Amino acid sequence: MSRFFSAKYDGLEPYVPGEQPRKSQFIKLNTNESPFPAAPEAMRMAQEAVADLQLYSDPECRILTEMAARKLDVAEDQLIFTNGSDEILNYAFMAFCDGGRTAVFPDITYGFYKVFAAVNGVPYREIPLREDLSVNADDFIGLNQTVFIANPNAPTGLALGRDDIERIVRGNPNSVVVVDEAYVDFGGESAVPLIEKYENLLVTQTFSKSRSMAGARLGLGIGNADLIRDLNTLRFSTNPYNVNRMTMAAGVGALKEEEYFARNCRLICQTRDWAAEQLRSLGFELTDSKANFLFVRHPSIGGAALYQRLRDSGILVRHFEGERIRDYNRITVGSRGQMMALLAALKRILEEEK
Amino acid sequence: MSRFFSAKYDGLEPYVPGEQPRKSQFIKLNTNESPFPAAPEAMRMAQEAVADLQLYSDPECRILTEMAARKLDVAEDQLIFTNGSDEILNYAFMAFCDGGRTAVFPDITYGFYKVFAAVNGVPYREIPLREDLSVNADDFIGLNQTVFIANPNAPTGLALGRDDIERIVRGNPNSVVVVDEAYVDFGGESAVPLIEKYENLLVTQTFSKSRSMAGARLGLGIGNADLIRDLNTLRFSTNPYNVNRMTMAAGVGALKEEEYFARNCRLICQTRDWAAEQLRSLGFELTDSKANFLFVRHPSIGGAALYQRLRDSGILVRHFEGERIRDYNRITVGSRGQMMALLAALKRILEEEK
Repeated sequence: MSRFFSAKYDGLEPYVPGEQPRKSQFIKLNTNESPFPAAPEAMRMAQEAVADLQLYSDPECRILTEMAARKLDVAEDQLIFTNGSDEILNYAFMAFCDGGRTAVFPDITYGFYKVFAAVNGVPYREIPLREDLSVNADDFIGLNQTVFIANPNAPTGLALGRDDIERIVRGNPNSVVVVDEAYVDFGGESAVPLIEKYENLLVTQTFSKSRSMAGARLGLGIGNADLIRDLNTLRFSTNPYNVNRMTMAAGVGALKEEEYFARNCRLICQTRDWAAEQLRSLGFELTDSKANFLFVRHPSIGGAALYQRLRDSGILVRHFEGERIRDYNRITVGSRGQMMALLAALKRILEEEK
Repeated sequence: MSRFFSAKYDGLEPYVPGEQPRKSQFIKLNTNESPFPAAPEAMRMAQEAVADLQLYSDPECRILTEMAARKLDVAEDQLIFTNGSDEILNYAFMAFCDGGRTAVFPDITYGFYKVFAAVNGVPYREIPLREDLSVNADDFIGLNQTVFIANPNAPTGLALGRDDIERIVRGNPNSVVVVDEAYVDFGGESAVPLIEKYENLLVTQTFSKSRSMAGARLGLGIGNADLIRDLNTLRFSTNPYNVNRMTMAAGVGALKEEEYFARNCRLICQTRDWAAEQLRSLGFELTDSKANFLFVRHPSIGGAALYQRLRDSGILVRHFEGERIRDYNRITVGSRGQMMALLAALKRILEEEK
């Protein structure tokens, strides 16, 4: 820290992203990336866009917004695009939280929420998940604080139904409920159909996982036009050209390839369910994940030890040090081949533990 | 504004970027874009990067940082890359300004500074330029507020020498001086060689103008390692993957093409100086611009009127409503052909005014 750094950041602990090894011989199952490349049309359009790189991108993201609005069956002024969904989440903390309306989220969820709160000077409260790591919707009703719910939740993969989400939204009429749907395409139920009905609902989504565009950085927010206008006020007050030309083009291309998208989601769900069964037969305990990752623990080896043993075997997964989850590892659902390599490594590790 | 928007943004007026017409028959001389495409190697590497779009980008920007450090003759920990230079400027307002250390900048400069101050709740003071629109370095000494100096300044194009910048940096030892060098490659003198000597100097640059990458969004900050660490704390607390894979690759490619870069800068300066002479011969008054734009007024037609007449002729320039500059228009230096079209239109407009 320099002596010039504002004291308002005293004690700020930045988010620690999953390891991104530079040149990897690792099988990389640690940051929930897709095992499939971006859609062919996404790649083609991104490549085409470099011809005009000398020109600013459209700060209104008009073409992308028109296409996404049609796809999601919402109005164009109910959408905002950002440089990944971390940016829209940060805007939501900026816009809808302050000393008066603080933030609330589950104690076990996306680890970035508490960092967004801290960097924006917003007090927050963590509400414990149930013993089985599920969200109890009743605990989030009548708070009138700004609620952040990842649905499906990370790193548990557990999802609430739309009815529970609706109860939370209805139960906090004077504050915004942010539903972070980064993983919704792998079996979750989206809250987007509710935005017409509730003025206090903001849904965030991303092209990173199900559309294989983590490296392109494209996130979005969906909510009523007034909320979106607030978020655009912040966007135009910090970084109006936040989405670059290539990413914008890739987004348009991705939305043109619904079959490719649906097939990839289906394959990942199939691989997930197959791998879950294999893991259970090895003695692992798993949550019922509706995401593109599995959250697993084994009675005979600790979470940190298993993480390290896998790493030594050339497989990267993600281990979190939280008290209630340190026995677990979060394993991205990769390709069938990657999961077979994972299972083989686990078998060997468990044998050696005996 | 929704009823959920935090009261801390009451009265916040977002930045208004220059118009980006969707499909343009306009000759676009309003946002200081380069008339030249990005470097061939920048395009090639960006296109190649789409093959790995499903993987997150490197949050450390390692390859790009190594190359840029060599090029700028600084250490790797003296560099940070951002999603355009607006993002690094916003981080600087976040990091180095607060109620105690407020912001100060010229009354006529990049219009975004006051928006960054407002969105971050930072009080600011504007110091008037001299009558001739130049910055008086003496006015910026001994302030011990966080100083923002665009050098060359926008929209005037006027530049301070490195000695004046050094006096300002030395004259504010207890606060950061941010030198925004968006336009430095067109004849300015960079302050980068001073960063080794002063712990309170942050230089910001961009690939948008001189490297023809406005649509890719790539900015950077250069300063001592402690300042850069502070800025990275904010980056990792808001958007660690802020630079996408394609842009990162394009940046590396651009840095490999120093000849292309130097030739484009030279051509733009030649076109600027030629166009300035032509404009003078039409009776225009111009500042001595060291940027890729001209700042011009004519005794026989007002700034807003000229803007509109040019627009009606299919030429977009930028007009600002500030009291001391409303007689002026800022005209990007485009290609020789674009400038000839501009000059022809101006001739006709002035004829009609007679």
